[in-house]
Amino acid sequence: MADFTAALFFAEMRFDPKDPHNPDADRFVLSKGHAAPILYSAWAEAGAFPREDLLQLREIGSDLEGHPTPRLNFVDVATGSLGQGICAAIGSALNARRIKSDYRTYVVMGDGESAEGSVWEAGDVAAMDGLDNLCAITDVNALGQSRATMWQHDMEQFARRWRAFGWHTVVIDGHDMNAILDALAEARSTKGQPTMILARTIKGKGVSFVEGKDGWHGKPFKKGEEMDRAIAELETQFVPVPTDGPAANLTAHIQRPASRPRPVETPKPMPAPAYKMGEQVATREAYGVAIAKLGDVDTRVVALDADVKNSTFSDKFEKAHPDRFYQNFIAEQVMVGSAMGLAARGAIPFPSTFAAFLTRAADFVRMAAISNVNVKFAGSHAGVSIGEDGPSQMALEDLAMFRAEPNYAVLYPCDAVSTERLVAAMAYHPGPAYMRTSRPKTPVIYGNDEQFPIGGLKVVRQSTDDVATVVGAGVTLFEALKAYDQLRESRTLIRVIDLYSLSPIDRDGLVAAARATGGNLITVEDHYAAGGIGDAVAEAVADAGFTVHRLAVREIPRSGKPEELIERFGISAAHIVQEVQRVQKVQKVQKVQEAR
Amino acid sequence: MADFTAALFFAEMRFDPKDPHNPDADRFVLSKGHAAPILYSAWAEAGAFPREDLLQLREIGSDLEGHPTPRLNFVDVATGSLGQGICAAIGSALNARRIKSDYRTYVVMGDGESAEGSVWEAGDVAAMDGLDNLCAITDVNALGQSRATMWQHDMEQFARRWRAFGWHTVVIDGHDMNAILDALAEARSTKGQPTMILARTIKGKGVSFVEGKDGWHGKPFKKGEEMDRAIAELETQFVPVPTDGPAANLTAHIQRPASRPRPVETPKPMPAPAYKMGEQVATREAYGVAIAKLGDVDTRVVALDADVKNSTFSDKFEKAHPDRFYQNFIAEQVMVGSAMGLAARGAIPFPSTFAAFLTRAADFVRMAAISNVNVKFAGSHAGVSIGEDGPSQMALEDLAMFRAEPNYAVLYPCDAVSTERLVAAMAYHPGPAYMRTSRPKTPVIYGNDEQFPIGGLKVVRQSTDDVATVVGAGVTLFEALKAYDQLRESRTLIRVIDLYSLSPIDRDGLVAAARATGGNLITVEDHYAAGGIGDAVAEAVADAGFTVHRLAVREIPRSGKPEELIERFGISAAHIVQEVQRVQKVQKVQKVQEAR
Repeated sequence: MADFTAALFFAEMRFDPKDPHNPDADRFVLSKGHAAPILYSAWAEAGAFPREDLLQLREIGSDLEGHPTPRLNFVDVATGSLGQGICAAIGSALNARRIKSDYRTYVVMGDGESAEGSVWEAGDVAAMDGLDNLCAITDVNALGQSRATMWQHDMEQFARRWRAFGWHTVVIDGHDMNAILDALAEARSTKGQPTMILARTIKGKGVSFVEGKDGWHGKPFKKGEEMDRAIAELETQFVPVPTDGPAANLTAHIQRPASRPRPVETPKPMPAPAYKMGEQVATREAYGVAIAKLGDVDTRVVALDADVKNSTFSDKFEKAHPDRFYQNFIAEQVMVGSAMGLAARGAIPFPSTFAAFLTRAADFVRMAAISNVNVKFAGSHAGVSIGEDGPSQMALEDLAMFRAEPNYAVLYPCDAVSTERLVAAMAYHPGPAYMRTSRPKTPVIYGNDEQFPIGGLKVVRQSTDDVATVVGAGVTLFEALKAYDQLRESRTLIRVIDLYSLSPIDRDGLVAAARATGGNLITVEDHYAAGGIGDAVAEAVADAGFTVHRLAVREIPRSGKPEELIERFGISAAHIVQEVQRVQKVQKVQKVQEAR
Repeated sequence: MADFTAALFFAEMRFDPKDPHNPDADRFVLSKGHAAPILYSAWAEAGAFPREDLLQLREIGSDLEGHPTPRLNFVDVATGSLGQGICAAIGSALNARRIKSDYRTYVVMGDGESAEGSVWEAGDVAAMDGLDNLCAITDVNALGQSRATMWQHDMEQFARRWRAFGWHTVVIDGHDMNAILDALAEARSTKGQPTMILARTIKGKGVSFVEGKDGWHGKPFKKGEEMDRAIAELETQFVPVPTDGPAANLTAHIQRPASRPRPVETPKPMPAPAYKMGEQVATREAYGVAIAKLGDVDTRVVALDADVKNSTFSDKFEKAHPDRFYQNFIAEQVMVGSAMGLAARGAIPFPSTFAAFLTRAADFVRMAAISNVNVKFAGSHAGVSIGEDGPSQMALEDLAMFRAEPNYAVLYPCDAVSTERLVAAMAYHPGPAYMRTSRPKTPVIYGNDEQFPIGGLKVVRQSTDDVATVVGAGVTLFEALKAYDQLRESRTLIRVIDLYSLSPIDRDGLVAAARATGGNLITVEDHYAAGGIGDAVAEAVADAGFTVHRLAVREIPRSGKPEELIERFGISAAHIVQEVQRVQKVQKVQKVQEAR
């Protein structure tokens, strides 16, 4: 890696070590994040920070972590989970097109990493999009973490795969500097397709007792004899820095991007929603309308699909902004990974698919949290309310997945107005965000001027005589409203809350409602019991001493009509009514006992 | 699909419609699960169930769901999330080798589905393992859900990819019955590699106004004129059933597996653990020891790796049972998918990797829940306690992922003895299970005869004067024990619980501890705050009116020494001591207020 990293940094790439974020700077993504030390060394050598900082590698006080994270200003996205960097690199390459820059994106992958399916998703998408501004290098050192790799040094195994996937493919000796420079030049002049440079390398090259040997992955030399011997061997191979000529001052030799003026991408305000009260609109459809509108006022907004645009309604964005719509076909990992790369370069990407299939990209969701990138996920077809398609298509763990990460905004609108408002809010919320949308049509219950700050909630029914608070969101809010109507007939009043923001959550609002309604909090969600609305509310009110009664889906569901499933799996108005009555009864018994 | 499904069921496959689970029966996996109606029709036609049941398709009272699930005895694993069936088929093919059966596995995939990375992970693994008992058929109908597929009818795009991945590849007209039968025969006679039949088909073949047209995916015909016309067109193409000859009775024509006697795979009891009290052993290492021992007594036990066997210690199993160890290289999706296929055919598979990278297979974890298969997951390197490698390698959401699914057993041992006992327990627990292991060495605290039933907990410190209960698991149990020692010095006694089983959870045990310790429950976990131990305990004790104080990792961590990170991210003994003191103070103030 030292050879081609040197070639990239000091002969090939155009960048400014003091301004890594320059919009026209070439990008370097270290997909094999465990090789972080070479990345840090290259940037230090280029002048990004003092060399002596390298000695703090992996220490708690240093940002030079075990695997690269964007805590370092020269890292676009965190790597260390293999097969993700090449997906992010696609996003970076797409962004160059979006901002009409000629910057190039370079990504270095491992040979072992090539077994990850996400790499081949990226292979397809990059070729299909003809990303000739993307150059990947695979470090074929033949050794994985625990053993030899699948194909070891059989370069043809790699070459025939990448050629089959439509990449311009070059096989080189990865320790031959002229071959490296030639291959990079060939990549630069290749038009209409991305280039894969397959570099045959020897792991541990230059240290005789390690070279090409298994069992040294991620292992530091033992201090003392072993380390001294390794350093001594390397030192005999050092070439003295020339006192003049281009190599005398490597840093001065770096090609720098011109600082050309570029239009600042500032959004105009998005027009207010234009729905009629009571109008029946699925939140997934309102989502499509909203991102298309947002795209009108902000050129940074882009949308990504995985062949379900007619179900998520992201096709509305495609119609309005075809040049900023990226089709990934049925490949959720590269969709999310390339959204991460786009976000890291200033775009505001909205990747969307069925919420159930966002779990396909769960490891990318996790890494997006570590990268803290502005990716705005949307997942449609949440819960049993999708009906007949059955459990494989029902997202019942998506809230748990996104809530688990500490820095995601997690939103769950119930009607078209709140959906549209929240789409705009999430776009400008710093960091990653997730919106859950539903398949069935639901009535518009909010006026077009209503505001929905992230971290808020709406009390949609209340009186001074409420005996309990029912917290719903999405489709279950309407079950709660039906329960309200039914209970009111028997003169029982309940407070109904629309918890449209699960993360952050309005603790004070929930505690106030609990206090005002006898401490009786009932949550109802079209989601499994763990990790969703019940847990979110329970944690919010725990310090105030309140507990939560939870209605949720508690077993694997099945096909059926939406209303049948909502009933069967325990989250219907009837179940809410029953639970309110049960909670009241328990409370009465307690009061009698206390009175005795 | 009707053409090659007919060929498979009534000319190619060997199976018994009345005994689909026959161990020597060929397997049929419908990876493109949305084509469920043809699957159901074929089995009905074969005599598995009455034809008229087909009219209950997608109804709540029928097991003929929108996508196939193992509620039907002829379905091995649920499909409907694309790219998973081919992974399961690999497990099925590996199982044939394990039980020395010559049954073949057939899997039907979609062309759109081929964009999923998991398909190419499967491509590599099946070729590497030389699975010539596996035959895949891709239905190349050129139309995805929302638009034309990436390569439409360009068959060479598919062929060159599969050839590059080492498969024997046959391109046919998918409506030519002789070509289908010839291709299946060719697959059967191909040795040393799996076969991919690429069938060029026309979507909606036989109905003139639908044939090859976009916009009909998953759309039923409108009752009335439209449906009548479609049926009439199809009826003109019906071939009358001959009154004699082999086609006269299709069912009689099916090849049936011999019912040969086979040795019943019954396990011997596993010997008790053999650790010394106080011995320092990482639970990940104890896991490796345990699966190797379990493999000695039960031939159904198999292990799967994704090139981290030296970190998860599954290499101990490989050394003991090399023929039942399946290497997937760095490809977590196919590792888990093939474990699903193995489990569906009677094996007890233990796939393992870093717990963080199990999120790569989150959608498979989800589908394994729907399939309710006996897959026994193990995830190592949990939490910030892994240290310097940094956040990309730390699992901090794995408990949330597995707990979210309603039917997983979720286990988290703290020492070697409990690890070994729980490995045996999870192996025989019906349904899927997950074990979380840790990187650091921890002392053995349990005697070798101690029992660890799933759904239990251990009270490891208690007295009649305990002021609070601290619930830990894994590495945090030892922080709780340190806190116990520190607090005891100032004469404050706490109860300490080892919550080794998160799902199912011992509600009664937790409530009893809460009651005995002033209602003060503190949880401490090396996991993010949402979805883990805190939430599990909070839900368990909510009905009894108790709330929980949670210590958990609440922000994205970083590289550092394990003990530094445990301290910095708020889950150390010092934080527990502080929290016990804070909770006591709050309670005192409350009592004073109540007394007034």
